[in-house]
Amino acid sequence: MKTLLLNKENVGSLISMKEVIGTVEQAYKAFSSGQVIQPAYTCLHFPPPRGEIDFKIGYCEANEIISMKTSSGGFPNNPTEHGVPSGMGTILLFDARTCALICVMDGSLVTGLRTGAAGAVSVKALARKDAKTIASIGTGNQARMQIRAIREVMTIDTIHAWSPHPQTLAQYKADIEREFGIPVVMARSKQDAVEQADILVTTTRGKGSLVEAAWVRPGTHIVAIGTDTQGKQELEPEIFRNAKIVNDSIAQCVEKGETWHPLHKNIISKHDIHAEIGEVLLGKKPGRESDDEITIFDSTGMAIQDNTTSHLIYRNAMASNTGTAFEFIQS
Amino acid sequence: MKTLLLNKENVGSLISMKEVIGTVEQAYKAFSSGQVIQPAYTCLHFPPPRGEIDFKIGYCEANEIISMKTSSGGFPNNPTEHGVPSGMGTILLFDARTCALICVMDGSLVTGLRTGAAGAVSVKALARKDAKTIASIGTGNQARMQIRAIREVMTIDTIHAWSPHPQTLAQYKADIEREFGIPVVMARSKQDAVEQADILVTTTRGKGSLVEAAWVRPGTHIVAIGTDTQGKQELEPEIFRNAKIVNDSIAQCVEKGETWHPLHKNIISKHDIHAEIGEVLLGKKPGRESDDEITIFDSTGMAIQDNTTSHLIYRNAMASNTGTAFEFIQS
Repeated sequence: MKTLLLNKENVGSLISMKEVIGTVEQAYKAFSSGQVIQPAYTCLHFPPPRGEIDFKIGYCEANEIISMKTSSGGFPNNPTEHGVPSGMGTILLFDARTCALICVMDGSLVTGLRTGAAGAVSVKALARKDAKTIASIGTGNQARMQIRAIREVMTIDTIHAWSPHPQTLAQYKADIEREFGIPVVMARSKQDAVEQADILVTTTRGKGSLVEAAWVRPGTHIVAIGTDTQGKQELEPEIFRNAKIVNDSIAQCVEKGETWHPLHKNIISKHDIHAEIGEVLLGKKPGRESDDEITIFDSTGMAIQDNTTSHLIYRNAMASNTGTAFEFIQS
Repeated sequence: MKTLLLNKENVGSLISMKEVIGTVEQAYKAFSSGQVIQPAYTCLHFPPPRGEIDFKIGYCEANEIISMKTSSGGFPNNPTEHGVPSGMGTILLFDARTCALICVMDGSLVTGLRTGAAGAVSVKALARKDAKTIASIGTGNQARMQIRAIREVMTIDTIHAWSPHPQTLAQYKADIEREFGIPVVMARSKQDAVEQADILVTTTRGKGSLVEAAWVRPGTHIVAIGTDTQGKQELEPEIFRNAKIVNDSIAQCVEKGETWHPLHKNIISKHDIHAEIGEVLLGKKPGRESDDEITIFDSTGMAIQDNTTSHLIYRNAMASNTGTAFEFIQS
């Protein structure tokens, strides 16, 4: 019985962002069709200077794949003291018809890719068709990934970026302009950036309410990425009051997404959540209905995104004869 | 960064039952010293003819290892239709100081070994020193594993075995006599077997109350292995009334072990549970105190047994240069 092993380099070479966007769309549709089992995930926390490791399991009826992604993060001393990255990941894929282990792949890249793709999927479904300006609050890896993905689904004219750290901001500008040829304006304030936005992307560590309701223009689409656990926040809850709210998973977002905050403050009730993104993609619920609406996509991240993305990587590897076969059980 | 890969053959050659017994003792002690994190495990069930797959995660402070064991079972058509076993397993080991993946090993053998060792650990701690006769209710793989383990900690004179299937019973007798040279008496009834026992081992699928209280002689030590989820049962709950009850994990046994049944029938209360096996091994609670006591060890199985057992396999592999190194992340 052969198991395919894929290292980080293999994984990086085996999939394009365009493909990830397609497979994340499939994931959302499967999720909102009840074809997915995603048990609550397990997280182990360690005292500083160590971080955490979590285990996310997902089963998708459509592809008959069970995935288990483990990812760690927040080990700042790893590079200097142990010569390994501060966060790592591994994905196991099982054929759900037999539960045979068909693939073990490095998981470092998949989370970033599928989270980037999530933003692009929401832009396709919810942003104005004439959107051309992006405000990026946050300038780290995921901020770059969002641009990498969104440029696959629209033409980006300008990015207005903001970071509390001038050096990080300058680096982001240099990287984006070099890699994608999209001009980046280094905003003097968050307000300056947000007020320019057709699409507002927030990818910070969620340390507080960063974006005020008064700054958000009618017609803006908001991609809220940073908040994926209780305690994180990026948006003033008031923004939700008259917005069209779309979640990746309502169950997850009301518990630990950006959507928790306006619920907790009674600015909205659960009934004010318009849809899950999968319902919009399936045509069960409308997407954007006017050029004036403010739409919010709250992405908390789901195991099923890892499932379909890593399964596509596996299929591409098999098709191109990439990777190393290993027999854990001799046949 | 190197990850060690160990196939099933490697795993089988890398550890002796004596070592597993030692490491399971360490696991129990660590557990009852509060040095262990064992989150609730995740199980996915599939409709027949498919079975289930579960994911058990454990962290042990003493060895700084995080383990994740996935094991599947109940896929009867796997061998004929797909050419793979009806149940399989995989274990990942992470260095908890960095969360680096240090080992991926086949997990087919570890559950059987550590469960066998559990029985032997309890025999050392709780059986009469002059015990020499075993009754085995159940004659499958785990029944054999119990004998393989218990013979490491005592001299077995005779085994009185019972199975509802005469052919299975005859095969068990032939196998045990050939492999270990221990005479096996094929009991005409469960009662016949149990009445002979110094040590009673139950390893059935837990389909009902199989052993009656009236059959159990004073001084018997009972190793209750078969019941590890709600709905399974092997012993008449009345047996617990005057017995010294020892659990692997009280939290687990009261919820899904054999201990659940007498609790549910109000034959005992939670206060009547004498100890966790780790507390006995640590000397915090007494083991057997007289030759007349009936002692019961209820084993539901814990992730931490997989953790210490697979970590020992890993260490033995590193020491003997066994296995295949693979770089999931190139350094």
